[in-house]
Amino acid sequence: MCGVCGCEQEQHDSRRVTVERSLLEHNRVHAESLAKQLAAHGIDAIGLLGGPGAGKTALLEATFESFGREAAASEAVIEGDCATDFDARRIAAKGVRVAQVATGSLCHLDAHLVEHALHDLDLAGVGRLWIENVGNLVCPAPFPCGENRRVVVISVAEGDDKPEKYPAMIAGADLLVISKADLLPYVDFDVARCIEGARKVRPGLPALVVSARSGAGLDSWLAWVRGEGG
Amino acid sequence: MCGVCGCEQEQHDSRRVTVERSLLEHNRVHAESLAKQLAAHGIDAIGLLGGPGAGKTALLEATFESFGREAAASEAVIEGDCATDFDARRIAAKGVRVAQVATGSLCHLDAHLVEHALHDLDLAGVGRLWIENVGNLVCPAPFPCGENRRVVVISVAEGDDKPEKYPAMIAGADLLVISKADLLPYVDFDVARCIEGARKVRPGLPALVVSARSGAGLDSWLAWVRGEGG
Repeated sequence: MCGVCGCEQEQHDSRRVTVERSLLEHNRVHAESLAKQLAAHGIDAIGLLGGPGAGKTALLEATFESFGREAAASEAVIEGDCATDFDARRIAAKGVRVAQVATGSLCHLDAHLVEHALHDLDLAGVGRLWIENVGNLVCPAPFPCGENRRVVVISVAEGDDKPEKYPAMIAGADLLVISKADLLPYVDFDVARCIEGARKVRPGLPALVVSARSGAGLDSWLAWVRGEGG
Repeated sequence: MCGVCGCEQEQHDSRRVTVERSLLEHNRVHAESLAKQLAAHGIDAIGLLGGPGAGKTALLEATFESFGREAAASEAVIEGDCATDFDARRIAAKGVRVAQVATGSLCHLDAHLVEHALHDLDLAGVGRLWIENVGNLVCPAPFPCGENRRVVVISVAEGDDKPEKYPAMIAGADLLVISKADLLPYVDFDVARCIEGARKVRPGLPALVVSARSGAGLDSWLAWVRGEGG
């Protein structure tokens, strides 16, 4: 019983934590196995994470447009959303293979859902798999999904304080993409503060400022995607 | 064991669902009791929900600036964030009583956390309590926190498809605030589509288009807050 308010929340929380730990451990093992399978097939799996409307799908659209025919041949996408297939349709319109995962009330993808989605994808000739998580800057953090690199996307409309407010997501990132840079003239967003905040959490984290709309920063982004640094 | 991939995810999920149900039920009872206590003290408790950077805190700042002295005397705020006290400082700078709840890895507030935060607030003379949840458009949905009205904030920078992509949050809303309207000229956001999407989920849901920055729409918002419709 809680010493302050006399309710039984603490017992509930303790049960929740126990179940969560076992889920996280199960997922970690599953994700490692999945990552090995993807690597064995020569597939570079990139996790794309960020809050709702951070611009994850728009970044993929711009990426595939830049790649042109190369994209349709060698890219594949898993789209995680609570509901709708809006994002899968946007990706399919670029001619890229895509599988939609509707998570319902679940707030993140996990290795199990990704493995099932892979059954729906023809991976012949695929060299890169994008795993776009549910729009959520909290819950996907501790659930690897078989990706070997993680990109966290934060838009300039969200505010430069977000890396410090959502540190768990940044702690697991391999790249921070500051998106919707075309909006910079119209919002109070200090790029340096945002990057500094992210590096307080994860020292040395690479960061790129990108606009899928104007194309600014896309060259550096595409170089990073191709593993040429950035 | 899962029939497709042979893993034990389904047992884990089933345990998670069992624990979640008991947590939700415990929270529901706790939230109802809290709502009754607040009502008995004549306090109008408003839940403020939305994704990261939707503009929840900016809306509160603009609200308190409009209220002037009235705000400092009769408003109080509970700020939920995974980390930092940035938002509590912004509210305190307006002279309004505020308690910060750092949720850590927890992705939402619950009635228990709110009740504890209330112990840190002097509620003498307070007529309205704002409960600003963690920036998350998924997880806070099924966790009432003692509020008697719920506002869901979605910014025009996030995209007009968000109500349909995050239906659970909209299903529990009493008002949709479409925020950052000053950015409308610079983004592809169809206000009518956004409201229509929300009303597919919750027929008749009231909606307001607001800019905390320019002040557009604030009069209607303040009327709604005061219970004068909107």
